[in-house]
Amino acid sequence: MSSTSPAPRVGVIMGSKSDWPVMEHAVTMLERLGVSYETQVVSAHRTPDLLFDYAKGAAERGIQVIIAGAGGAAHLPGMAASQTALPVLGVPVESKALKGLDSLLSIAQMPGGVAVGTLAIGKAGATNAGLLAAQIVGLGDSQVREAVEAFRAEQTQTVLDNPDPRPPESRQG
Amino acid sequence: MSSTSPAPRVGVIMGSKSDWPVMEHAVTMLERLGVSYETQVVSAHRTPDLLFDYAKGAAERGIQVIIAGAGGAAHLPGMAASQTALPVLGVPVESKALKGLDSLLSIAQMPGGVAVGTLAIGKAGATNAGLLAAQIVGLGDSQVREAVEAFRAEQTQTVLDNPDPRPPESRQG
Amino acid sequence: MSSTSPAPRVGVIMGSKSDWPVMEHAVTMLERLGVSYETQVVSAHRTPDLLFDYAKGAAERGIQVIIAGAGGAAHLPGMAASQTALPVLGVPVESKALKGLDSLLSIAQMPGGVAVGTLAIGKAGATNAGLLAAQIVGLGDSQVREAVEAFRAEQTQTVLDNPDPRPPESRQG
Amino acid sequence: MSSTSPAPRVGVIMGSKSDWPVMEHAVTMLERLGVSYETQVVSAHRTPDLLFDYAKGAAERGIQVIIAGAGGAAHLPGMAASQTALPVLGVPVESKALKGLDSLLSIAQMPGGVAVGTLAIGKAGATNAGLLAAQIVGLGDSQVREAVEAFRAEQTQTVLDNPDPRPPESRQG
Amino acid sequence: MSSTSPAPRVGVIMGSKSDWPVMEHAVTMLERLGVSYETQVVSAHRTPDLLFDYAKGAAERGIQVIIAGAGGAAHLPGMAASQTALPVLGVPVESKALKGLDSLLSIAQMPGGVAVGTLAIGKAGATNAGLLAAQIVGLGDSQVREAVEAFRAEQTQTVLDNPDPRPPESRQG
Amino acid sequence: MSSTSPAPRVGVIMGSKSDWPVMEHAVTMLERLGVSYETQVVSAHRTPDLLFDYAKGAAERGIQVIIAGAGGAAHLPGMAASQTALPVLGVPVESKALKGLDSLLSIAQMPGGVAVGTLAIGKAGATNAGLLAAQIVGLGDSQVREAVEAFRAEQTQTVLDNPDPRPPESRQG
Amino acid sequence: MSSTSPAPRVGVIMGSKSDWPVMEHAVTMLERLGVSYETQVVSAHRTPDLLFDYAKGAAERGIQVIIAGAGGAAHLPGMAASQTALPVLGVPVESKALKGLDSLLSIAQMPGGVAVGTLAIGKAGATNAGLLAAQIVGLGDSQVREAVEAFRAEQTQTVLDNPDPRPPESRQG
Amino acid sequence: MSSTSPAPRVGVIMGSKSDWPVMEHAVTMLERLGVSYETQVVSAHRTPDLLFDYAKGAAERGIQVIIAGAGGAAHLPGMAASQTALPVLGVPVESKALKGLDSLLSIAQMPGGVAVGTLAIGKAGATNAGLLAAQIVGLGDSQVREAVEAFRAEQTQTVLDNPDPRPPESRQG
Repeated sequence: MSSTSPAPRVGVIMGSKSDWPVMEHAVTMLERLGVSYETQVVSAHRTPDLLFDYAKGAAERGIQVIIAGAGGAAHLPGMAASQTALPVLGVPVESKALKGLDSLLSIAQMPGGVAVGTLAIGKAGATNAGLLAAQIVGLGDSQVREAVEAFRAEQTQTVLDNPDPRPPESRQG
Repeated sequence: MSSTSPAPRVGVIMGSKSDWPVMEHAVTMLERLGVSYETQVVSAHRTPDLLFDYAKGAAERGIQVIIAGAGGAAHLPGMAASQTALPVLGVPVESKALKGLDSLLSIAQMPGGVAVGTLAIGKAGATNAGLLAAQIVGLGDSQVREAVEAFRAEQTQTVLDNPDPRPPESRQG
Repeated sequence: MSSTSPAPRVGVIMGSKSDWPVMEHAVTMLERLGVSYETQVVSAHRTPDLLFDYAKGAAERGIQVIIAGAGGAAHLPGMAASQTALPVLGVPVESKALKGLDSLLSIAQMPGGVAVGTLAIGKAGATNAGLLAAQIVGLGDSQVREAVEAFRAEQTQTVLDNPDPRPPESRQG
Repeated sequence: MSSTSPAPRVGVIMGSKSDWPVMEHAVTMLERLGVSYETQVVSAHRTPDLLFDYAKGAAERGIQVIIAGAGGAAHLPGMAASQTALPVLGVPVESKALKGLDSLLSIAQMPGGVAVGTLAIGKAGATNAGLLAAQIVGLGDSQVREAVEAFRAEQTQTVLDNPDPRPPESRQG
Repeated sequence: MSSTSPAPRVGVIMGSKSDWPVMEHAVTMLERLGVSYETQVVSAHRTPDLLFDYAKGAAERGIQVIIAGAGGAAHLPGMAASQTALPVLGVPVESKALKGLDSLLSIAQMPGGVAVGTLAIGKAGATNAGLLAAQIVGLGDSQVREAVEAFRAEQTQTVLDNPDPRPPESRQG
Repeated sequence: MSSTSPAPRVGVIMGSKSDWPVMEHAVTMLERLGVSYETQVVSAHRTPDLLFDYAKGAAERGIQVIIAGAGGAAHLPGMAASQTALPVLGVPVESKALKGLDSLLSIAQMPGGVAVGTLAIGKAGATNAGLLAAQIVGLGDSQVREAVEAFRAEQTQTVLDNPDPRPPESRQG
Repeated sequence: MSSTSPAPRVGVIMGSKSDWPVMEHAVTMLERLGVSYETQVVSAHRTPDLLFDYAKGAAERGIQVIIAGAGGAAHLPGMAASQTALPVLGVPVESKALKGLDSLLSIAQMPGGVAVGTLAIGKAGATNAGLLAAQIVGLGDSQVREAVEAFRAEQTQTVLDNPDPRPPESRQG
Repeated sequence: MSSTSPAPRVGVIMGSKSDWPVMEHAVTMLERLGVSYETQVVSAHRTPDLLFDYAKGAAERGIQVIIAGAGGAAHLPGMAASQTALPVLGVPVESKALKGLDSLLSIAQMPGGVAVGTLAIGKAGATNAGLLAAQIVGLGDSQVREAVEAFRAEQTQTVLDNPDPRPPESRQG
């Protein structure tokens, strides 16, 4: 398991190494917002016992939010949620044939009683999983809350500062 | 605005009174888990200014999580999220023609930078929005956390106590 | 756990009692073909530990095939398959909003390395899960194999004997 | 905000600079038909206040039609419509995973009471948004109306003049 | 052809009498906003010549906007648009099997060069077609514009006056 | 096999008696247009040998067109086409869960080299299968061709004679 | 209009030159089977009058079958069918965003009373449109019928002669 | 027909040579697990008689499981199942336009009475078809069963040994 130095508050797990190019966007956002995290490959189907151990033990290790990314018949987020009372966020990774529609439905359509907060398919969803995890952590940590607010203000300002959609070379005097 | 006596910690908003039969399941869960809440009709399209006022003011009124339910081109959760740093959970209400597929995509497929944690379409999603909100609130409130754990243990026990799927009248000696 | 008298060879599990009206069609077929079975409610999300115990212990209790039915974000078949080397058949139960498309994708779109043989959505799928389980059991049991062949011959004959699609009252002299 | 010299009659907004390669086709059509316009990046989620200011102030600045393009959970057209009585046309920009089906449903499936006229996904939709805006402007401006009619006649003639679908090199004497 | 007394400014056509229960909502909105209209059954497939005559002659009869509703392989709006430079709005009527997804795609996915402004599937879409037609007519008629603004203000006020989503009988002291 | 007195020219087959309420609309149209036919239940899956015999022998029995209706994984039309050089028309019968989308794709998406002319899902498709079969038969039979033309003219006239979409009781003066 | 020397018996029309790479597969098949044809670009939306003239005049020019290919909101086949009693076959051309699902539904889901025999999306559908047209023409022309049978036998033989799916280089001694 | 030396126990058939790059993954898995097999191109549509002969004769040749892969309107698995009492597994091959959704529905949505165990679309599904076939064969062959268990244990260990999702070059000290 890889983790940053301070005790990690967000656990970022994914079903396969091949999910990393998507899930790293969650990590990028957590780092930007100053939220400590750990990352690990945990496969619902290939390492089910590891998944249960991970999810059962997360709270007492100080984890506050679990972010789980998976594609296709994506069972990782829901099964993690079945073994913890921590909030679990799910990132549907785009699948080859069905482009993540299967991933989205497999994660979002949970039955009543075990909840997963689902984000968008792919990179945007991973980014937002990191952001939403920080928003949750920020409820009890004003430094994170302020980082979230600063990030949000900054992205607003970026749009305001660049209102012209046309590429510079096509603008007229 | 209707609210329970203690300062509400979860704001449950919905685009229309017609969403209540779905969204009341969020409220039922919050009540069961002892999380104070308020409920209000706030329409993204018919009362956009109210929505912005609501979302902008939620944090300072003590709200910790916003649950927003809407159907069809469901803009309420995403637009609430655009005006607050609080975590926002979205419930896709089943629409008449497309059965909530439109609602789900309109809520889940947010661009990177503004996040909504999306639950399942309909009643199960509303129930789980209440549960996930309590899980989030529970990170900072051990009483709520214990209520979540008790609820989860109880629903597990209910299955364990009733393992026979057949209706009583069709069971044999 | 309910089971017929001889040691059960097929385990029929489902995520909820509400799946019984669908899953009983698997049982009906197994009974017709003389394959012993047991039935039990096992919820991937509400009783994950039970699911793992069930799947891990199935082979040594003499189970040869597991039939698992679930709806929505249907994780039961895939997670059962993750804990046993027995063949697992999945039945997508029709969900309220998305009519079982979510169930089908959640069951069928398994990643390489853990397999679920998926049947059709709903009653036809449950019937065929019972049939396919019997076909599998029949590879090592000629009595079951003959029962399958007899069933298949009989349903062929039923069509051959009744070639007129029109209801009797609308037929002419 | 970038605009052509005469007071713009059509406002072309989009959620992100990355929508420009699609939305420029609206501008191309407006230019061809002699309809003045302005273009601006206005993000529903990152700059919600700007969006409201833009939509609320459009009519009094002389804007007659707003064209709004966005992808994924595309809230820009509907939220613009919520703040103006001007006609709003929505262009679903193709999204990466779901190819614009999410964009289309997020824009078209508006509830009764706030309307968006939705065009096709992508470039064809942007082109037609420019054309439809001109058709609307043309109701009160005979010069624009004639430009629309001329454009339409010309594209008809182009087909009539080139009835052979085969590339020239594959035609026979 | 049935029409209200003043020269009709909006033509409401539909492919079949069976579309009336949906399309009457367009008429209801037009009446509410004081926009004169006519209604007629015009089938793209059963009366193609009538459709062409209708669309070609609409402008000179004083029609400013055509609203066309149809279901399934819904060709009426697009074919009307092919024969007029007036703005055409399309209402996808819910179809039996595919619930209007076919209608929506058949109307919205027009190729570049002939435009249809598409509304939502079913009743909400018909209502909004009436509203959007009035918004378009209102660009040149301040009375209609004011009626639109009054309608919009009234529906906003209705939400503001009734913020409690719970049915009266379930509210507590 | 049931057939009308003259040698049947169209064979109407279907996978199950339960398809009759849909497929009888093909028969109704054939009768109206004076095209002799036969009807029979032929199941691709339950009576594959019968299907092959039927399709292989159809041409020499004087059949000119085969109409095949089936639902779900609908293999009847394509497999009939694989065994005859006669034109085969397929009618996707609405399925319970997926509403005939599965039937439509199973029939329409044939690989190059074996063709099925596919009609709409359900009753409209069955009606049109009868009509299209008559149009094909009519190429070599002027009486049938005239019947088709008369039918088409009559349905056009019916629309022209009843242009008012409103039910009689809601019309004014 | 381009046509082969003998009076053409099949008219192959398409909405745009860009459909040629798909539709040429219909032509290839017609040539292979010795069926005379003509090809022309006829756009439902850009040249509606041409389309009506084409379809109305086809029968008397000796055309027996019309093949119409179009993509997106594909109205060409259905509108051609509305103006002729000849059999019309529709080819859904793959669209950019929705991959031809829109094309397929726009062509296949015709209302009862005007029929289009729909083929598969893209190249396979165009090939089969040529084949099905030949099967129809072959009902009255034994030479074409024999060509169809020879083609079918040949493609069967090709499979029978090459049963090994592995590329030659990967086969073992 | 190509086969490995010992009497083949699994028959791997596919509709076309072009399916080999997908279906070879079934073969790879069978080889890894020590299950003898044969492979053959058998097209439901182009060689229907061969398909029937193959399926009817498979059992007596010692085949225990048939794996059938096909794309689009994929009838091969279901039609094979209609002619044998052996278990049949279906692999939906990804299709060009609809990305295998058509293949999946054509294979999975079988009517009650003839069963196909369906795997995922594409390579993962082919891999799992090989695995599931081995699990079935393994019920009567302890050597295969142990090979399955070893494979499963090994893939679990591979994940456990490589828990860090980040590529080596991006890991910190």
